Amino acid sequence: MDKESPSQLSSFFDPRSIAIIGSFREEFFGGYVIVKSLLNAGYKGRIYPINPAYEEVHGLKVHASISEIPDNVDLAIIMINARSVAKVMEEFAEKGVKAVVVVSDGFAERDTEGALLQEELVALARKLGVRIIGPNTAGVANTANGFNPCPYEAGYYTIREGLTAICAQTGMINPQAFPYPKLRFGVSKICDFGNKCDLDECDMLEYLETDPDTKVISMYLESIRDGQRFLDISRRVAAKKPVLVLKSGKTQEGAKASVSHTGAIAVDDKVFEAACSQAGVLRLAEFHELFELPKIFDSQPLPKGNRLGIMSFTGGVAVLAIDEGAKFDLAVTSLNPETAERLNSIFPGFGEIPVDMGPVMAAVRDAFDRCPEILHAVMADSKVDALFNVLWANPSGNIVKRYLEAYEALSGVSSKPLVTWVYGPSAELASELSGRLEDMGFPVFSSPASAIKALGLAWKYAQWRNRIQGTVCPDR
Amino acid sequence: MDKESPSQLSSFFDPRSIAIIGSFREEFFGGYVIVKSLLNAGYKGRIYPINPAYEEVHGLKVHASISEIPDNVDLAIIMINARSVAKVMEEFAEKGVKAVVVVSDGFAERDTEGALLQEELVALARKLGVRIIGPNTAGVANTANGFNPCPYEAGYYTIREGLTAICAQTGMINPQAFPYPKLRFGVSKICDFGNKCDLDECDMLEYLETDPDTKVISMYLESIRDGQRFLDISRRVAAKKPVLVLKSGKTQEGAKASVSHTGAIAVDDKVFEAACSQAGVLRLAEFHELFELPKIFDSQPLPKGNRLGIMSFTGGVAVLAIDEGAKFDLAVTSLNPETAERLNSIFPGFGEIPVDMGPVMAAVRDAFDRCPEILHAVMADSKVDALFNVLWANPSGNIVKRYLEAYEALSGVSSKPLVTWVYGPSAELASELSGRLEDMGFPVFSSPASAIKALGLAWKYAQWRNRIQGTVCPDR
Repeated sequence: MDKESPSQLSSFFDPRSIAIIGSFREEFFGGYVIVKSLLNAGYKGRIYPINPAYEEVHGLKVHASISEIPDNVDLAIIMINARSVAKVMEEFAEKGVKAVVVVSDGFAERDTEGALLQEELVALARKLGVRIIGPNTAGVANTANGFNPCPYEAGYYTIREGLTAICAQTGMINPQAFPYPKLRFGVSKICDFGNKCDLDECDMLEYLETDPDTKVISMYLESIRDGQRFLDISRRVAAKKPVLVLKSGKTQEGAKASVSHTGAIAVDDKVFEAACSQAGVLRLAEFHELFELPKIFDSQPLPKGNRLGIMSFTGGVAVLAIDEGAKFDLAVTSLNPETAERLNSIFPGFGEIPVDMGPVMAAVRDAFDRCPEILHAVMADSKVDALFNVLWANPSGNIVKRYLEAYEALSGVSSKPLVTWVYGPSAELASELSGRLEDMGFPVFSSPASAIKALGLAWKYAQWRNRIQGTVCPDR
Repeated sequence: MDKESPSQLSSFFDPRSIAIIGSFREEFFGGYVIVKSLLNAGYKGRIYPINPAYEEVHGLKVHASISEIPDNVDLAIIMINARSVAKVMEEFAEKGVKAVVVVSDGFAERDTEGALLQEELVALARKLGVRIIGPNTAGVANTANGFNPCPYEAGYYTIREGLTAICAQTGMINPQAFPYPKLRFGVSKICDFGNKCDLDECDMLEYLETDPDTKVISMYLESIRDGQRFLDISRRVAAKKPVLVLKSGKTQEGAKASVSHTGAIAVDDKVFEAACSQAGVLRLAEFHELFELPKIFDSQPLPKGNRLGIMSFTGGVAVLAIDEGAKFDLAVTSLNPETAERLNSIFPGFGEIPVDMGPVMAAVRDAFDRCPEILHAVMADSKVDALFNVLWANPSGNIVKRYLEAYEALSGVSSKPLVTWVYGPSAELASELSGRLEDMGFPVFSSPASAIKALGLAWKYAQWRNRIQGTVCPDR
């Protein structure tokens, strides 16, 4: 198939009109839910449900056949029996449709008969000049225009708009599976590749390369379709925006299992690792990182060096953070004499990294009130390239108010990355404080290890970018 | 100092009367809060606050001096200036007190002067026959008797009673820092060793060895005081109950930092790793694991083999779980022909591990209703030694109800470990379902990786137990 230009892929994410063919019975999965999801997300395009057995769904007319649609169709969503998909795709092509999402399963992930059906579908699509996402996919979403055709109940929950595109060979990233607003993860585009019979990670990378709404790309892959193409494209894209990849099939057992999940052919993990290093692709290790680690890139500047500052209410977490940082080439720094002196004048021994707030808070009466001053002094120190701050969310007194003041004063002016972890006896208060810091543009992570890894990836990416741009790291 | 018998350490956890010397001013930290914590937690022993500057705190009389206390004192809690601690300890000793918690900081963690003060304190304690927890500690707690003298505001929150003793060289485990009830982590005893000048991990292990309320021990350590003693005692204790240890200072940088946190001398990590393997001690890698991974041991039977079954609503997570399992010697299993046939009759291809509920739920109308039947068939299969189940918490229909029925029927009868991860678009619903499963005795983990690691540790522990008992693994 000819390579489509990125703009042609926009039919999948910004269609002016879509057709949906499937069942419109009220169930937890199906066409009924797709229409509900679209209406709930505020999609403004035209929606054409198709099924001869229904007249109306959610107040929209259901057409009896594709040929009856009185309009151009940019995108078709197909969720009918696998054996009938090819025929329907052909009818859509006759209507001029060039983009098809095949939600139906029963293809290569099922059995050899399904694999054959999938092969035939791809051959037909090539002949017709149609592009396919899927089959066996939960589909796509675009938060910029309210285009959320989620086929699963509860997938019409509001997605949180943000700067990360998330793509995966699983529907676990679609809005029926993940509480985007609650976990404060903001997305631009979502794409479940499903069996990835046609449109794949490389196509998406090319599309996202120029997508103005996407600043970071986060991907879960079980396979790479074309290693050389992936290397070429991801290197080019990574030079513009960070690309984070979680890849399963690291072990032989996992690789074997991915075949029956999406019919994927696995790639040797060492080869993949080497390719990622070359291409500047940042590798993730766990599922939650897909959602959590992009945050460092969508709000924080890249670190200019690897000198890690740590402030904490608890020495134990600081010690663990130093261990963790060493894994990612982050070296615990010391403070300049002036900063150290200033902090030591508040409390003896305070002017050291980790800056341990615990004993100070217990001993110095107005220490809480001095939170903003202390945070700013450490952030401003020229020997600190990045800061990890551990906050104790305590309901008493004015402590939370002071944190907010401290961060507010840094908002928009700091040129260094700041990552935060919040703990405390009330999960609700910790969550509320985290949310308010994130609303100001400061990412808060679910664990100290995640916060440090985020900084570690940012530092790795900063070095790679400097290297490919032929520049050297700034003097330190 | 002579080794105390475990029962003598009970003064720290089950004192009939305690004295508290410090400030009783209303502040977020101090004696005022300790008394508040004790009263809130329902401590039934006698409480003697001491300070000549106060008359009353929370309705209790404050005594002017130690000698004025009209009673025996089992435990003293000291939070006064570091330089005055030795003198006060001597007065307590004169009153017959043998157990002292020194909350005060400013000792070895501060500077050389503090280190000297600490040395002198230890020498004096030995002379007087007094045992010390601390200094620089947030103290202890015992959920069995409401003994929670937490010195930090908000530490009087209810702790959740449970079977895990948690001990650490940090106050991050004390109730002012961790939302025990919300995160459903049940504890028996809490002990912050602080600077660990006297009572240490070995003493605690010996005490917990015979503590009937403790089934699992979870520890965070920055140092080991006596490697050989630790090896001997932990091996003996691990034969009775699982011992999980998170140790910082894995890197040189981390080791250095732990010196200034608690004045600890670090031990070479490779030596420690070897000691743990020999002693059957299970090592943890991240802070949250301290709280999360003991759950597998307090409710589930040990696996009799390493054959891992997986059920999931999402194939992607199953693939990642297989990768993860391989790290811990858990091998993905297959089903017996009868089980496979039974599942295949529900949906073609369903009778395989991972048992993928996703396509079945979408295609088979009564699949949700058959959840209990499906779960039981897989759990009962003789080729499954342990099961990882991934649940989609969906607000629609009867799905959550069916999960609960399925687990309820297994409760108390299953002889295999079952670990669960719950996901879904509503964080509240996922949390509610998790809580109900945990109330039935089935641990739910915060991530797929944690669930698999819990099974992995259980399998490792099961093998070690079999080995030291000179028995062989049961036939498989």
